[in-house]
Amino acid sequence: MKRTGERSILFEGGAYVSASACVAGKKEGEGPLGDTFDEIISDDLLGTDTWEKAESELFKKAVKMCAEKSGKMMDEIGALFAGDLNAQIISSGFAARELGVPFVGMYGACSTMIESMLTGAVFVSSGAITPVIAAASSHFCTAERQFRTPLELGTQRPPSAQWTATAAGACMIDGIKTEIQIESGTIGRVIDLKIKDAAHMGAAMAPAVADTLFGHLSDLAISLTEYDRIITGDLGKYGLEILKELVKKKMKDCPSGLFYDCGANLYSDEQDTHAGGSGCGCIAGVLAGHIMNQLKEGTYQKILLLGSGAMMSVTSSLQGESIPSISYAISLKRC
Amino acid sequence: MKRTGERSILFEGGAYVSASACVAGKKEGEGPLGDTFDEIISDDLLGTDTWEKAESELFKKAVKMCAEKSGKMMDEIGALFAGDLNAQIISSGFAARELGVPFVGMYGACSTMIESMLTGAVFVSSGAITPVIAAASSHFCTAERQFRTPLELGTQRPPSAQWTATAAGACMIDGIKTEIQIESGTIGRVIDLKIKDAAHMGAAMAPAVADTLFGHLSDLAISLTEYDRIITGDLGKYGLEILKELVKKKMKDCPSGLFYDCGANLYSDEQDTHAGGSGCGCIAGVLAGHIMNQLKEGTYQKILLLGSGAMMSVTSSLQGESIPSISYAISLKRC
Repeated sequence: MKRTGERSILFEGGAYVSASACVAGKKEGEGPLGDTFDEIISDDLLGTDTWEKAESELFKKAVKMCAEKSGKMMDEIGALFAGDLNAQIISSGFAARELGVPFVGMYGACSTMIESMLTGAVFVSSGAITPVIAAASSHFCTAERQFRTPLELGTQRPPSAQWTATAAGACMIDGIKTEIQIESGTIGRVIDLKIKDAAHMGAAMAPAVADTLFGHLSDLAISLTEYDRIITGDLGKYGLEILKELVKKKMKDCPSGLFYDCGANLYSDEQDTHAGGSGCGCIAGVLAGHIMNQLKEGTYQKILLLGSGAMMSVTSSLQGESIPSISYAISLKRC
Repeated sequence: MKRTGERSILFEGGAYVSASACVAGKKEGEGPLGDTFDEIISDDLLGTDTWEKAESELFKKAVKMCAEKSGKMMDEIGALFAGDLNAQIISSGFAARELGVPFVGMYGACSTMIESMLTGAVFVSSGAITPVIAAASSHFCTAERQFRTPLELGTQRPPSAQWTATAAGACMIDGIKTEIQIESGTIGRVIDLKIKDAAHMGAAMAPAVADTLFGHLSDLAISLTEYDRIITGDLGKYGLEILKELVKKKMKDCPSGLFYDCGANLYSDEQDTHAGGSGCGCIAGVLAGHIMNQLKEGTYQKILLLGSGAMMSVTSSLQGESIPSISYAISLKRC
């Protein structure tokens, strides 16, 4: 393990993704990435009586499936690094109760999956605990209840609004070499350019993503072209455009098509989700399925993942506060 | 860094507490530990217009003071590991926005301080990022709003209820040797014995503390008497009694007076807080002041800290769920 620059880490001791699994809702299953999920849920209550319990089931499914794919029993998992959007991260906390695995609760809003992978990779690469699972989930109905208006109101959504994905993703991180290495990571800072519109989260989060991206490149003394693709989650269509503008202002060598946003690609235009997907489960599910597939197939040799999270609550918004945001980065390399 | 046993870590690379600071409210300042806080706040709004903003100010004060005491500027801090009880950890998130320091959001309810110290110690000891600050806060008024009933209702509290401390504590963790070493840590599991009474959190949390304590002793192949004192935070008076019962059932060599609960000692009987203090800020504030003083003075050579957290939310409680709990452990040694 080696610190590089101000806030970046090189996982020299070795941290590898040894298995991944993702579960998604019906709407996500009908989208362009539908066939990349391990399981599509047709009932958004998953047989429970509340959406929060359902999200916890979704989370549990992804973690269990990830362990199964790796050929490991749950009691062989050293720790679970995870969180979700619900107050007091109840989806992951209650799931951890059933799973019985040592649990490290994380919160980085929609960046939680990448925050958890970065932290988990430090534990694994340093030999503290291994293997670990990093996981995150979100559910459209729990997030609307948590952050916006009761679904029953049928409130109209503006074009900049993102659709919280009903999805969960889990990645096992191991010290034993596999074909996908977690090479480096960068910790984010809380950045706030005073956006107050909870229906325009991409605009609030883009500056935090730019800050972490610039910090990462500077800390590692590399340029954008080090990566075959820079994958964000989840800025949505408009947030992604803002990020590109911010990058182009600072860097002239920005190849077009370098950026890919998980949220902007989760649904088709016909699915009417406006700016695209969001939620902890969006980048978690897309990473654990689609992106892992692409790395394994050799579509990319090396990518940078930038998870982004909006760190407000309904209380802070009601108190007139703006939306502070954060972004964590990890790079994945095909070995 | 070395893993030992199932879920424990020996910080062999070195993790030391290089500074600590704590700030507390008026009531806490009037209690038996009043003179151990660096600053007592007389105005529980700290000049802001909401309790949540006030808690964020309290948090910020503790972190800034901790950095000042260490002689470091804020931009020399590698990362801040922190959380609080508010939904989406807004107290620490908004404070991190002002502090400008790389931020790793954690959530372990009232165990957050020890969870953050354990995680921070892994980053420091492995050389990933150093120095770091671990911090946590709570505020009586934000917690009542978050978990119970509006304060304006004046709801009567049962004798088993704990009083959420208005307090914040911060500890700097460095790789350079100081007089206090973080020697080992143990990750908790989510344990739930189906307690549903949110006014009897100690009963819900005691089994999680026992589980982590037994795991710690077993992983390190040591006995209770390895430690001069085993410090919990925060079981309160009744929870502490339950923990002692659980320990005595399993271990015959349990010295009386070995256990000390931060919550049970934060207020005097005359202060009418019933079962004692609780909240992320309770163990954080007592650790950063009173306990650090005792270690420096040589009252103890080696102690075990067990933070305990109740991982429910108001939503899970309204949905009929019980209170799942977790506990993280770190041991501190006088060098």
